[in-house]
Parts: sequence; C-alpha cells; structure tokens
Amino acid sequence: DARVVVHFSTRGDDGRWAVELREPDGRGTTRARAGRRGEEVRLPGGGWLVLEEPLSARGERLWWARAAGAEVPAVLREHGRPIRYSYTERDQPLSVYQTVFALPSPDGTGSAEMPSAARPFTARLVAELVSRGVQFAPVTLHTGVASAEAHEPPYPERFRVPEASARLINAARAGGGRVVAVGTTAVRAVESAAGGDGVVRAREGWTGLVVTPERGVRVVDGLLTGLHEPEASHLLMLEAVAGRAAIDRGYEEAVRGRYLWHEFGDVHLLLR
Amino acid sequence: DARVVVHFSTRGDDGRWAVELREPDGRGTTRARAGRRGEEVRLPGGGWLVLEEPLSARGERLWWARAAGAEVPAVLREHGRPIRYSYTERDQPLSVYQTVFALPSPDGTGSAEMPSAARPFTARLVAELVSRGVQFAPVTLHTGVASAEAHEPPYPERFRVPEASARLINAARAGGGRVVAVGTTAVRAVESAAGGDGVVRAREGWTGLVVTPERGVRVVDGLLTGLHEPEASHLLMLEAVAGRAAIDRGYEEAVRGRYLWHEFGDVHLLLR
Repeated sequence: DARVVVHFSTRGDDGRWAVELREPDGRGTTRARAGRRGEEVRLPGGGWLVLEEPLSARGERLWWARAAGAEVPAVLREHGRPIRYSYTERDQPLSVYQTVFALPSPDGTGSAEMPSAARPFTARLVAELVSRGVQFAPVTLHTGVASAEAHEPPYPERFRVPEASARLINAARAGGGRVVAVGTTAVRAVESAAGGDGVVRAREGWTGLVVTPERGVRVVDGLLTGLHEPEASHLLMLEAVAGRAAIDRGYEEAVRGRYLWHEFGDVHLLLR
Repeated sequence: DARVVVHFSTRGDDGRWAVELREPDGRGTTRARAGRRGEEVRLPGGGWLVLEEPLSARGERLWWARAAGAEVPAVLREHGRPIRYSYTERDQPLSVYQTVFALPSPDGTGSAEMPSAARPFTARLVAELVSRGVQFAPVTLHTGVASAEAHEPPYPERFRVPEASARLINAARAGGGRVVAVGTTAVRAVESAAGGDGVVRAREGWTGLVVTPERGVRVVDGLLTGLHEPEASHLLMLEAVAGRAAIDRGYEEAVRGRYLWHEFGDVHLLLR
C-alpha cells in the first residue's frame, strides 16, 4: 500500500467529509493525486475512509468520503496537522493559524484554512478600535481547502450571518457608515446574506456565491485581504470591490515595497 | 503660608477649573478644607490659582478657580498625581487608573476619577466578546471629583454620545438586544442622550441629570458597577435600574462572600 496524505476539508450535512488525497513530493510537502470511486484509505487508529463520489463533475481531486470505524475530529486531534503551505519552512502548531476572533467550535470542526486576513488583529487593537467607535459584526464561513492551484471556482461553503450582525451592518449602512470585510471569506458570507435590496438578513447554510464584477457587491464597501498569487476567482472578487486599476496599483506597490505575500504575510485595504 | 493640596476636577467652557482644596491629615491622605472667595494658591512652577466662586450654593468645598501664569495640564503632568483613595496603601502610577478603553485626549484633560467599572475588562475579553456578537458603544463622561463623602448630589459633568453609538444602541434595542452600561458614568451619559421616546440621539455638552427611581431609566437594561459605600445618589441610580430588593441581595452576598469593595475592587452586574 502506498502512503497518502488526506486533506480533510468540509463536513457535509450527511456526515461525509470532503477530502483531497495527496502524495509526498520528496520536498517535505505534497502534490495532489487523483482518487477513484470506491477507493479505501486506512486511517491511523484503525478506521478507514471510502471515497464515494467526486465533489463536482469538474474533476477527481476532491471527493465526498465516508469514515468507518473512526471519529474524524478525534483522528485529526491525535494525528492531524494544520494545512502546510509550500512556502513555509516547517510545520507550525495549530495556535499559529488562529486569530484573536477564534472561538471554540462545539464539535471541533470548522475551516480547513485559516482566516488569514484577521491575523494582524491583536486584542489590544480590537479594544482600541471599539473605543474609537469601530464595531465588529462576527460572521462565520467554514472554508474548504483552497482550490487556487487547480484554478477551480470556489466550492460551496457553510456560512452563518447571525441576527445581531445583520442588524449592525444594516444600521451602519443606514447611518452612512462603511462596511469593511476582514477577508474574502467575510465578503462571501455577507454578500450571501444580502438581498437584491442591499439589506442583510440573518442566514445560515451553504453558499455557492461567486462574487464577480458582473454580480458586484451589495453591502461591502471595502476589504482587508492578504497578497496572493493572481488566481482567477480571488482576483474577480477584489475587482468587484475596488475595480481592476486599484488592485493593479496595490500589487505593483506591494512588489516594489517587498511586502510579505501569502497567508502569513501582510494585508492590504481595498476600498470601493 | 500653609501647604494645601489642590484637587483639579473639571475644566469649564470658560477655561476655569473646578477645584477642591484639601489639607494633609497626618495619615498620608488629606481632608477637605473650605476655601474663600478671592483666595490665592501658589502652584509649583510659578503660577497661581484664584478661587472665584463656589461651584454651587450648596457649599464651599468646590470652587471655580482661574489659573494665572500656568498651563494647568502641564503643571499636572509634571507635579500632579492621580486621585488617592484613603483605602489604598500608596500612590499608584497613572496607568493603573486607566482601562483598556482609554484613548489619548487631545489636550490632556478628562476625568478626575477613573472609570472603575471598566477595569476588569482586558483586551482579550473585549476581543472574545465582539467575536460572540457583543458590541461596544463608546460614550464619554468626564467625571468631576466624587462628592460621596460630602453626600452632595452629582454636579454637572461634560459628556458625549457620538452618532455611531446612538445608532448602535437604538439598533440593539429595536432588535430585542440588551443595553448594559459599564459604570454609573455610562448610565448618566446614555440617559442624558435619551429622549422621552426612549430613542438615543447624538448629543454632547453638560449634563446635570440625576437618575432616580422616580425618573427611571429609558434605555439602560443593566449596569456593571463596583461595590461602594451606600451613598444616596449612587444608590438611587442602581435602584432605578434594578429595584431596591436586588441591590440589597447583591450587597448582602458581596459582604458574605468578602468581595472587594471600592474603585479597585470587584464589579457586579445589575439587570432590570
């Protein structure tokens, strides 16, 4: 049997897991590897996974898999490690992937990727911002594994915009305030809860929304986000918020100023 | 000339200062001392103060005084120290009197007393609360020196409820949320900005409002506050929020449980 690395992404409502199979690339990281229907993968601790069907007709990278003889969150707690980016030098503890806004999840599941745009926020900064009248509206979006390298459009993700946050966002807009999303995930969540009338309503479930310049943004006036490889769907969202010219200028300046790229790097602010 | 200790309280709109003269009591603290009209007090650094008129007809403890040959904030920065409570063992640095919500004031003036109910808030706690959907509406009230020992009703104080905070409070109430004041100062500020219709409007200036059970509260659903000597006006405000029975039970429990009293002590939550 060949050794494989399993990336666990989202848990579906039916208890199956979206997974990706990868194999060691000899450089300490891994590369994607196609799966096949019915393939079984033994998990450490005695259980196993069965790949049941591809997540989409678009490819065989991501599969809905059912676990047998194992509780996935328990396996991950004991044997798992957080997603490892190819530009990082070594594995990092889970705490490094969490932000000051992290809350414990009841069943230990959540995002497969970190909400990197919020990493620069310290508790001290949050306290100063609220003291200056900046309010925070918490929203949730559980990201799956990024599809950047495969240039796939984003998969549906589970999200939640609670009543109090919907109310706060609407009140801020009604009063002439600005709504700034912290991360593209927050844009996806808030825009998924916004009606055609621009009013945000409490909503939770799965969103397949792809924010493009054609669709536009209904609520978000700005976005704090990291600097990433120009990947189609990500760039389209930034363009929907700030227009192409502003993004090009920002990236040029980031290159010139040697800003830090990727999930552990700098963030920039885009305004409508 | 006898040595006196001057407590600087509020700065009036006309540039005069509300001050209290005190004299050493031989135990490391001071006791109040009556002033008289026209009395001059030499300040360290070369300037002086002239007592012009009593703050109110109620007594000769607090005076409007004009400073000559000295900038009071500069004198305070160099020679002043924060208010010293008689139960504390030694002088403490100014930083001990500040909370996580403190912001620099443009001219260095502000409250003469610390906003003690906010002391238990750490930046980490604020970040967790906002992550859980609790919002903070900043309001300002510059307290004068407490009149507790003289059993005087509260003097007018300068306050400000900004537009964004008024909006947030109204939106929270409209959505069935609860408005919890952090400190009696916050109650005075918010209630001073509340109309008879219970709607809060952006407002700033001076407030002479005394919240009593007869007047009632229009906006505040609860109050976080310290444990203080039962002083008439303070107790009346608590009673207006939560009713006398709840306050009596709380204080009995605080005595039984040996909770810490006063400005540097514990806080308790009163709900309507």
